[in-house]
Amino acid sequence: MRKVCVVGIGHTVFGNLHHLDLVDLMGHASLNALEDAGVLAERREIVDQVFVANMGAGRVNIQSAIASALVSRIGLESCMAEAVENGPASGASAVKLGVMAIKSGMADAVLVTGGEMMNAVTRWISTDFVASMLHHEAEYAYGMTLPSLAALFTRLYMQRYGVTERDLALIAVKSHENAAKNPYAHLKTPCTLEAICESDGADHANPIIADPLRLYGICPVSDGAASLLLCAEDSPKMRHFTKPPVTISGIASATDTHCVHLRADPLILDAVRLAAERAYTMAGLTPRDISFAELHDAFVILELAIAEEAGFFERGTAHLALRRDETRVNGRLPINTSGGLKAKGHPLGATGVSQIYELVKQLRGQAEPERRVRDPKHGMAVNFGGFGNNVVVTICSR
Amino acid sequence: MRKVCVVGIGHTVFGNLHHLDLVDLMGHASLNALEDAGVLAERREIVDQVFVANMGAGRVNIQSAIASALVSRIGLESCMAEAVENGPASGASAVKLGVMAIKSGMADAVLVTGGEMMNAVTRWISTDFVASMLHHEAEYAYGMTLPSLAALFTRLYMQRYGVTERDLALIAVKSHENAAKNPYAHLKTPCTLEAICESDGADHANPIIADPLRLYGICPVSDGAASLLLCAEDSPKMRHFTKPPVTISGIASATDTHCVHLRADPLILDAVRLAAERAYTMAGLTPRDISFAELHDAFVILELAIAEEAGFFERGTAHLALRRDETRVNGRLPINTSGGLKAKGHPLGATGVSQIYELVKQLRGQAEPERRVRDPKHGMAVNFGGFGNNVVVTICSR
Repeated sequence: MRKVCVVGIGHTVFGNLHHLDLVDLMGHASLNALEDAGVLAERREIVDQVFVANMGAGRVNIQSAIASALVSRIGLESCMAEAVENGPASGASAVKLGVMAIKSGMADAVLVTGGEMMNAVTRWISTDFVASMLHHEAEYAYGMTLPSLAALFTRLYMQRYGVTERDLALIAVKSHENAAKNPYAHLKTPCTLEAICESDGADHANPIIADPLRLYGICPVSDGAASLLLCAEDSPKMRHFTKPPVTISGIASATDTHCVHLRADPLILDAVRLAAERAYTMAGLTPRDISFAELHDAFVILELAIAEEAGFFERGTAHLALRRDETRVNGRLPINTSGGLKAKGHPLGATGVSQIYELVKQLRGQAEPERRVRDPKHGMAVNFGGFGNNVVVTICSR
Repeated sequence: MRKVCVVGIGHTVFGNLHHLDLVDLMGHASLNALEDAGVLAERREIVDQVFVANMGAGRVNIQSAIASALVSRIGLESCMAEAVENGPASGASAVKLGVMAIKSGMADAVLVTGGEMMNAVTRWISTDFVASMLHHEAEYAYGMTLPSLAALFTRLYMQRYGVTERDLALIAVKSHENAAKNPYAHLKTPCTLEAICESDGADHANPIIADPLRLYGICPVSDGAASLLLCAEDSPKMRHFTKPPVTISGIASATDTHCVHLRADPLILDAVRLAAERAYTMAGLTPRDISFAELHDAFVILELAIAEEAGFFERGTAHLALRRDETRVNGRLPINTSGGLKAKGHPLGATGVSQIYELVKQLRGQAEPERRVRDPKHGMAVNFGGFGNNVVVTICSR
């Protein structure tokens, strides 16, 4: 089976970019990736297929067929093009399809670009828009939102495993520390444990959003785009590319019940465990082989829960590793060196692509020195859709 | 490279089904396909990947992550699942991704289900919703709609090639004749050349919608779903299936400029020609090998234009073949034996899947006797996105 390499990476800044156009933003990240790969001028001959990852253009931007729009915006006709939607896991899903397209032999080079314009709508609508991924009759219709589900999950997790508010704050502090050194991050404001854990009263720096979830336990509402150029290792096109090769050694996804309440144990994220197992099998690796990881911390508790399901820690112990600083940049298993969704930001369709962008940047040794992982061999990204009902796991290797 | 077979087919009736739920509708077509394949009970073990084709759930149904929703509705967890959007060509795009998934070796059996709920919104909004696939700044912002673009295209085509209003009516009559014999068709009302060509005055049976386009020159606004189960010919799973094997021998897509006005000649549909050439190459076939075709006649003029770009007739001559009845069920090259988009209906995301459903039904010899093609070997489907900016061509063979 053909090996798939990431040969170019592109990224826009994440933040409130509502004054920009979604397709322009995705075009910017795409041209970035093509330039990084050294094929900006030859792009029309290089790219066989484009996959666009996006969740909300139809409703938020009143725009459909955005894959065709992107192709035309950056002059890639007559390549093939489709948009892929899998909620907040759309990004890694598009990368998975890119890998399938190349391994199938139907494409040699695939451009995967994820983008989302969350701030084109107001905050209130944005919560409703995100909630549209929940079960339409059994969850959404009752006013359930992602933060309310995450709050229930967080409370049970804290009770069962002894995770404290201080642990949750520690994750936020770590992510802000990393994001402050990432030029593309949305939140670069300093954040100390004292400020978010020990203040109190009406002007609490870290107010409750959905008990026990506080402001610093939730990702911001971000706009942004990220892009990857993938190529078959055995393609003659590979001679164009000069960057250190990074391969996608494993990529797989898994689904779980749409509704959380149908799971035997609401804290068990089957889709994460299964997708990770499938990705490990494809790559011929085990959790011990992974040097660092980008985990989908839309809510900080998920950094712990996902790390456990992916096999990095025993269930209910990830917070102990966190307390021992094992998941900081210089720790045994750095997690979310990019700042994670918590602080880098979470433009839904872009997130999965951005996570893999970070894996490649670290594996190339190109991350900013203060947040660079030492000599990584394999990185894992977990992109989490719905409340764990559709999860994509990617392993990149050098 | 692995051969891909269609081993099960499913379809709902097309029509105004706004009282139903989109995911239920797609579930119905999916279970149909699994039942046809004989694996309804074993479906959880059979299906590795689901692709859902849909254009408007985000805006029309205020629903995202519908691939996860479908998986959960019909109990297919933990298979992989993604939704695919490519405007009105979403359906065949999803089939293309199904073929890629299987050829990549990352899946053996893929369920592809397309569905759309157009009537959940009013007619006026539905025109606006469809127009959201046009260029956002250069077309949509100026109030351009698909019917207005099609009217310009039709006028120029009529002038250049001598196509008459009677020719356009002939296409509608042919499609209604076929649809009347298709149990799943939206419009089964009889339609004679006299009624739509020769009436006049205020109660004209065929009033002008966008000059020169008349009511019978445009597809209806339909809801519906269609589904296909694909499997690798070399997979052990094939032993479960009993229906006559139909293979997807060629499938490919191509893009063109997003805006029609940027094309050197607005009547030349490059993306159709290129996608067809790529599909012929993949299948090792030529236009002469094709026994019958389903062509994307959202506007009847497109049946002629697409047939010419696909290589069935010299440019500007398809209407002459039409006049000679060559494209009727018993003609030399039957076109739109299902009733086409014109009369079978056009639920956007479902259409491309439904076209391939028709190819399989005809190639199995299972079409209703009065609309059955005699001894077909290869059928072609052309699914047309935007105004020809993203086109998918599929060839099925027995």
